[in-house]
Amino acid sequence: MEGYGLFLVLLVSALLLGFLSVLFALVWVFHYREGLSWDGGSAEFNWHPVLIITGFIFIQGIAIIVYRLPWTWKCSKLLIKFIHAGLNTIAMILAIVSLVAVFDFHNAKNIPNMYSLHSWIGLTAVIFYTLQLVLGFAVFLLPFAPVSLRASLMPIHIYSGLLIFATVIATALMGFTEKLIFALKTPAPAYSTSPPEAIFVNTLGLLVVIFGALILWMATRPHWKRPPEQNSKIQQPNGGTPEGTEEESTMTDCSNTDKSDVEFNSEAAARKRNLKLDEGESTYSSSC
Amino acid sequence: MEGYGLFLVLLVSALLLGFLSVLFALVWVFHYREGLSWDGGSAEFNWHPVLIITGFIFIQGIAIIVYRLPWTWKCSKLLIKFIHAGLNTIAMILAIVSLVAVFDFHNAKNIPNMYSLHSWIGLTAVIFYTLQLVLGFAVFLLPFAPVSLRASLMPIHIYSGLLIFATVIATALMGFTEKLIFALKTPAPAYSTSPPEAIFVNTLGLLVVIFGALILWMATRPHWKRPPEQNSKIQQPNGGTPEGTEEESTMTDCSNTDKSDVEFNSEAAARKRNLKLDEGESTYSSSC
Repeated sequence: MEGYGLFLVLLVSALLLGFLSVLFALVWVFHYREGLSWDGGSAEFNWHPVLIITGFIFIQGIAIIVYRLPWTWKCSKLLIKFIHAGLNTIAMILAIVSLVAVFDFHNAKNIPNMYSLHSWIGLTAVIFYTLQLVLGFAVFLLPFAPVSLRASLMPIHIYSGLLIFATVIATALMGFTEKLIFALKTPAPAYSTSPPEAIFVNTLGLLVVIFGALILWMATRPHWKRPPEQNSKIQQPNGGTPEGTEEESTMTDCSNTDKSDVEFNSEAAARKRNLKLDEGESTYSSSC
Repeated sequence: MEGYGLFLVLLVSALLLGFLSVLFALVWVFHYREGLSWDGGSAEFNWHPVLIITGFIFIQGIAIIVYRLPWTWKCSKLLIKFIHAGLNTIAMILAIVSLVAVFDFHNAKNIPNMYSLHSWIGLTAVIFYTLQLVLGFAVFLLPFAPVSLRASLMPIHIYSGLLIFATVIATALMGFTEKLIFALKTPAPAYSTSPPEAIFVNTLGLLVVIFGALILWMATRPHWKRPPEQNSKIQQPNGGTPEGTEEESTMTDCSNTDKSDVEFNSEAAARKRNLKLDEGESTYSSSC
């Protein structure tokens, strides 16, 4: 893998930032706020930032780059697809539970639902995320969609995924802003006086933005793409695919050492193709 | 150009959404707020959303996709570079003036500066945008940087540009949230009661997000890239470049019809190369 060292540095940085963000969310609700419970009060609301940061930001971010981890390139593509879909499903469930916590808290306190821009964009993101997951499952995991459909939908799937991820982070930033303004007012020191909680949550906002920036960088470098499988079944003349996707018929898990040489050669060839693409990009870039 | 019709539809939609966003910002400050002036009061603050939406969102968005407009592909690349840099310079100036308006307003009203997450991320975005502009000018417009440096910095330039653009939109959403919470409270109807101004500005937030999504889609489709120039000077064996970038020596403006055939042929060849890249991507995608 070209630039393996840099990839590792960025991956470790992203993981640290992700863990740190979750830790910051927990410190925020336990040290500065009312902790966590499910009683219709503020401690129920607090599940909202904790679950969004854990699931909808950290886990979603990892789900996005799981194909890019070079040590998974010897594994079956189907297995990685299941991990990608599984992580996104966990993220979706946590996001939905976090929404229930907010609606429950609002209803208990007679606060209207869905009035803020944060709620408009946040709910839209959850709906699109669910649609993306269902569509991704139907097209890329189930064995019925023809290769031509998969190929034409893949750029949209990738773009939508990254756009939703960025939108979720933007929504979280609006959420931090709302919560700090509402929570930090008389008799508490106002947000505008920069009490420790304000500095702490602003810092959490920065952590989340940098985490998102790292994930987006890793996810969009062409030379860090998972190399395509070398399997003649991919190129079906009628654009159709038999039951079972192309890879699972030849590679089913990561533990089969007998096939490692073949796979290594496939990867080497695939990397070579990827590099050719990159060179094309460089040629283009050099005229800019 | 492949998918020219779709490109036009998206471009017209983006322009309409951009104009509508600026119009919404003006209606917001003139109909719902205190209008515009430079007196240290709320009407001075109002320059902030108007200039950010006009310059830092709409003009920046157009600057991002200016290379993608197919009718400019016959123009000198240098001319388009100047337009790209010029639009970004206008956007930067408007953003800085809009910051001055806020600082001025805060100072006149004894409101602390730089306490909110909005201000932290917003100022960071303006600083990075200025750095990006200076670096872009030095590397891609001045004739001193070697081709190899341009080629290696171009992916970073593109990524930073898109990341800053997305961050600016996220910051604007935080700004709408802040302003609505602060402005809509007793004796005015609270934000949570969804008065017309709240619905109006929430809608403005959605417009800006959709505008950003369209720009990011247009800017990241490989088959809508400006074709690279067919000029042997591009491939300098020592990686250096003579004074003047490679294109301006042969193409200096859009009006030279004598060269149109040559340019058309160059474009056709370049498009063909781009398509080969796309096919590579499709092959990759089809294995997903």
